[in-house]
Amino acid sequence: MIIAIIGGGKCSKKVANLAEEVGRELANHNATLICGGLGGVMEAACKGARQAGGQTIGILPGNRAADANEYVGVPIVTGMGEMRNVIIVKSAQAVIAIDGEFGTLSEIGHALKNSIPVIGLHTWELSKQGKPKDAIIIAENASDAVEKAIAAAIRRLD
Amino acid sequence: MIIAIIGGGKCSKKVANLAEEVGRELANHNATLICGGLGGVMEAACKGARQAGGQTIGILPGNRAADANEYVGVPIVTGMGEMRNVIIVKSAQAVIAIDGEFGTLSEIGHALKNSIPVIGLHTWELSKQGKPKDAIIIAENASDAVEKAIAAAIRRLD
Amino acid sequence: MIIAIIGGGKCSKKVANLAEEVGRELANHNATLICGGLGGVMEAACKGARQAGGQTIGILPGNRAADANEYVGVPIVTGMGEMRNVIIVKSAQAVIAIDGEFGTLSEIGHALKNSIPVIGLHTWELSKQGKPKDAIIIAENASDAVEKAIAAAIRRLD
Amino acid sequence: MIIAIIGGGKCSKKVANLAEEVGRELANHNATLICGGLGGVMEAACKGARQAGGQTIGILPGNRAADANEYVGVPIVTGMGEMRNVIIVKSAQAVIAIDGEFGTLSEIGHALKNSIPVIGLHTWELSKQGKPKDAIIIAENASDAVEKAIAAAIRRLD
Repeated sequence: MIIAIIGGGKCSKKVANLAEEVGRELANHNATLICGGLGGVMEAACKGARQAGGQTIGILPGNRAADANEYVGVPIVTGMGEMRNVIIVKSAQAVIAIDGEFGTLSEIGHALKNSIPVIGLHTWELSKQGKPKDAIIIAENASDAVEKAIAAAIRRLD
Repeated sequence: MIIAIIGGGKCSKKVANLAEEVGRELANHNATLICGGLGGVMEAACKGARQAGGQTIGILPGNRAADANEYVGVPIVTGMGEMRNVIIVKSAQAVIAIDGEFGTLSEIGHALKNSIPVIGLHTWELSKQGKPKDAIIIAENASDAVEKAIAAAIRRLD
Repeated sequence: MIIAIIGGGKCSKKVANLAEEVGRELANHNATLICGGLGGVMEAACKGARQAGGQTIGILPGNRAADANEYVGVPIVTGMGEMRNVIIVKSAQAVIAIDGEFGTLSEIGHALKNSIPVIGLHTWELSKQGKPKDAIIIAENASDAVEKAIAAAIRRLD
Repeated sequence: MIIAIIGGGKCSKKVANLAEEVGRELANHNATLICGGLGGVMEAACKGARQAGGQTIGILPGNRAADANEYVGVPIVTGMGEMRNVIIVKSAQAVIAIDGEFGTLSEIGHALKNSIPVIGLHTWELSKQGKPKDAIIIAENASDAVEKAIAAAIRRLD
């Protein structure tokens, strides 16, 4: 099972700790982690996953494998900029969004467009014409996010 | 000047009328219209623009030029699915979002990530952790949207 | 009708003259020219087309419309590097390859893979295990190339 | 180290045996195999690699992980059609081309454009204006191809 973690390339220490815990939990559930391969949330999540023995894949926007953070096991070089966001979410059976900025927002849009479940931790909230759109599954903490992601992924595989 | 119009591939008659008026206003301001080239908001906007003598470009997700709506003057065939959303917003100096679903949300994310101004007409509202993010410039009606888009585009060119 | 011109971003004066003549002939046949939007063969072809009153579209690899040569009428900004080669050939009903290096070779491959006819002017020759593969339609000069491209494009539309 | 294997989605039994042997040799050298993830040469190479305990990555053109051949360990879903060819070669330190048709030709072009060494086994031969272009390193057999690919990859890392 492949689960995506999306979030900002820069983040606070608090958010990094959360991402690292999510990465660790994913590895403990034998899920492969896919992400954008750079810093911030991506690096923290990969660190947590690798330290717990998990597999990590980084879908890089640039042209150099060396751009990947040091915890990426398989660096995929795309040279296609942020279009690579689509690959990150499409390759996953579920997506966990942690905090994040506009790039993360685009990934949430692409995931939901493709009916890929999105679990949210302190991330974007969506509404249209004053009405909340509850398309994102809210999680309380790291282990809740991972459990909800895996449950959603299994429902899709059934 | 190139302005993007983004919105759903299906839409209500009311939203279609709004999109058509936006397209017409863009042509009246001599702006070239770029969009995803399919139905709904895209088709209505192209119709308005073409009937007012404007130029229309459709960035198609599939492999066939024939998928373009009949008001697309220049069909660009990408075969890359929704990744083409990135091209639509990057090719424009400003973006007008009309209503729309998750695909439109991804385009808003990509535009804002690239500091391309987004004008919103009855579209997504964004907030994070309970706080509204006023990244989208709200427009009241079609001519207001076009004026704000062109003003924002000119500010970028300066 | 949209015809693609592909070739190197740098080229000799002789090749540039040839490309300019091809661009001019395309415009004289009312065909829209699509290309990669940069220098060398692309710039010379756009120059010829524009000076003869033709429409020119540049599918740019980078993130800035300002990277387009001055004869591109519609700059399309992709930010996807050389993957944009696929869009150039897929958007055309036929492709004219003039000289060119490895990027041009990739475009020839993508065009032929998609059954889009390729007309060659002093460009790559292909063989496999010692046997020539005559997949490219050889042209003698600029006007021959344009006539063969338009004839091939019309056959496809039929 | 990541080595790409490129070749046709359909191939003869003889070519499949060759591809399987190349995959097996790559695994024996502890190289990760990346490919397009589908049938023919890709499937045979993945089979050889997996049966020898190697890691295999498939960069899929479509929208479904289930399209991957059964020997792909990590399926990456792109939905971008043949543009994914660029990712396959850019993610590798060297490329081995086995037989192949026009898709393989496009990959050879993209690899050489990016200065990624290409080892050829019964694949395309290139010439321009009657002069052979010896840009492809010719290999005699499977183990020769793998040795040359790994040597070329190591030279790039130095």
